[in-house]
Amino acid sequence: MSLPTRIHVKEVGPREGFQFEKVAISLADKIALVDALSETGVKTIEFTSFVSPKWVPQMADADDMIAGITRAPGVAYEAIWLNEAGLQRAAKYREVLQLRPMFGVAGSDTFMRKNTNRTVDERLEELPGWAESYRKLGMDWIDVGVMAAFGCNYEGDVDPRHVVTVLQKVEQKAEACGSRLGGIGLADTMGWANPLQIKRLVGAVRDHWPNAPLKLHLHDTRALAIANIVAALEMGVTSYDSAVAGMGGCPFAAHKGAAGNVTTEDLVFLCQELGVETGIDLDRMIAAGQLAERVVGHPLPGKLKSGGNLTTYRARALAAKN
Amino acid sequence: MSLPTRIHVKEVGPREGFQFEKVAISLADKIALVDALSETGVKTIEFTSFVSPKWVPQMADADDMIAGITRAPGVAYEAIWLNEAGLQRAAKYREVLQLRPMFGVAGSDTFMRKNTNRTVDERLEELPGWAESYRKLGMDWIDVGVMAAFGCNYEGDVDPRHVVTVLQKVEQKAEACGSRLGGIGLADTMGWANPLQIKRLVGAVRDHWPNAPLKLHLHDTRALAIANIVAALEMGVTSYDSAVAGMGGCPFAAHKGAAGNVTTEDLVFLCQELGVETGIDLDRMIAAGQLAERVVGHPLPGKLKSGGNLTTYRARALAAKN
Repeated sequence: MSLPTRIHVKEVGPREGFQFEKVAISLADKIALVDALSETGVKTIEFTSFVSPKWVPQMADADDMIAGITRAPGVAYEAIWLNEAGLQRAAKYREVLQLRPMFGVAGSDTFMRKNTNRTVDERLEELPGWAESYRKLGMDWIDVGVMAAFGCNYEGDVDPRHVVTVLQKVEQKAEACGSRLGGIGLADTMGWANPLQIKRLVGAVRDHWPNAPLKLHLHDTRALAIANIVAALEMGVTSYDSAVAGMGGCPFAAHKGAAGNVTTEDLVFLCQELGVETGIDLDRMIAAGQLAERVVGHPLPGKLKSGGNLTTYRARALAAKN
Repeated sequence: MSLPTRIHVKEVGPREGFQFEKVAISLADKIALVDALSETGVKTIEFTSFVSPKWVPQMADADDMIAGITRAPGVAYEAIWLNEAGLQRAAKYREVLQLRPMFGVAGSDTFMRKNTNRTVDERLEELPGWAESYRKLGMDWIDVGVMAAFGCNYEGDVDPRHVVTVLQKVEQKAEACGSRLGGIGLADTMGWANPLQIKRLVGAVRDHWPNAPLKLHLHDTRALAIANIVAALEMGVTSYDSAVAGMGGCPFAAHKGAAGNVTTEDLVFLCQELGVETGIDLDRMIAAGQLAERVVGHPLPGKLKSGGNLTTYRARALAAKN
């Protein structure tokens, strides 16, 4: 098994997690969790969304979050937006927020329509406008995220060749307006991926864009997320999204309460055991996971926060021998 | 990725799961769960223990369970025992129970002592007595199970070479008394295994006993069980224990409520997606998982029972296209 020596983890729990909570979480609790995450060694934290409070009331406090968190040195703080108004709100904070020229498409037209009321091709027509907005902010490329890249509850399996075709369209559209394709994110939005498919899709994307930074965003809806990450590590993928304690739920699963994002502390543990560096202090991330559970007030799916870090047991065992 | 075409799954949920429940489960509920499992296509169900009701009160109804369950054709029903008295209780039912000449050792002396008040070497002294009892029942071999084969909360990591040494001692002891080493089971009793270690230990055992049937018993205490099974499938391992809904808890984890056995329906889903036959109807196993959760009265860790079977979504997607 040949694995990368180091990976980059983006913590997305506060952004993906809080929006699914039925009970309002206080601003102070949200800030406390982001601040705890800032002390774990994680290098990027996506912590809020500039979206309409009409649609996502849990994110109405985005400005207060930015004002309230304690930014740690060396940590990049990110937010997301879905339209130009959201981007302009985020851009006001560019001194303290890391902006990325993101552009979302999907492996499934039905999913794209249900999310954005547009087909993928209609969505592509909007790319030049986004490229122009990003260029004005100094970013002359597009980071594309492909939702439902492995399968879709409405359309079924998604063929890796179809994802490649969608990415080719994005690239052509970007180049036609003087931008270019930057990073590629592949999201298993509805928990369809398995280790074989991870290898197939990552392989297909690598064949076409060998130098594009590649990121995976995996959900654990059907228990395979950690196995999928092992497959991706074997393919040399070095960038992953994850959520502390497995926050996030999955609104597209068969039942409410289904697991959401792969759990950060479980991912960090996997890497620790495989000898892959994350730069994250596992004990602190476990503590942040336990805090996340207290903050939302119900059990969250991550395992390490109950299973415990083996490093602790190893140290105790060594002490007992000596 | 080269995978076996078919694996054998032994369902151990009723045996491992019920004993950890704080609230007494009724005999009727236990029987209902075993009967539901009998209809899933699983070929072996380990459903009770012949142990002292003083130590494990939840298993005091072993005889009633045997009388009460509806045995399905083609399904083997197993139970466990820890001493000669337990074996003799089980042997009375040999017409309806599949007896196995099991003999448990451990990769760690401390764990062995805490479980049985004996070191591994002291335990080995008992092997001839067990071999004799098993021979009287027509079994001239020993199926060895190695607990804590990957690591131990008291002694730390367990070296694969140490496990090989323990197995060699078992084999020598068995042959010295006219028995022989049959199947080998490797148990990750406290959730220490990772995919690299699975490959190392399975490889080491295979090097020494290329023809011995090999079985893995994995716990999901630290979220790696499914990834560990993928690693084992890649090594060609074709026999696994698992527990419906992930019943079982793990009394040795850092915190109560830690995950126990790998979940049967999650394992079956993994195999379905990888094209590995289990002979199990996933929808029925998901229903059994949902029943298990109702019976114990609290959430259980398996994911498929909330995430849902992708086969259903594929069929719906196909119907929508036509």
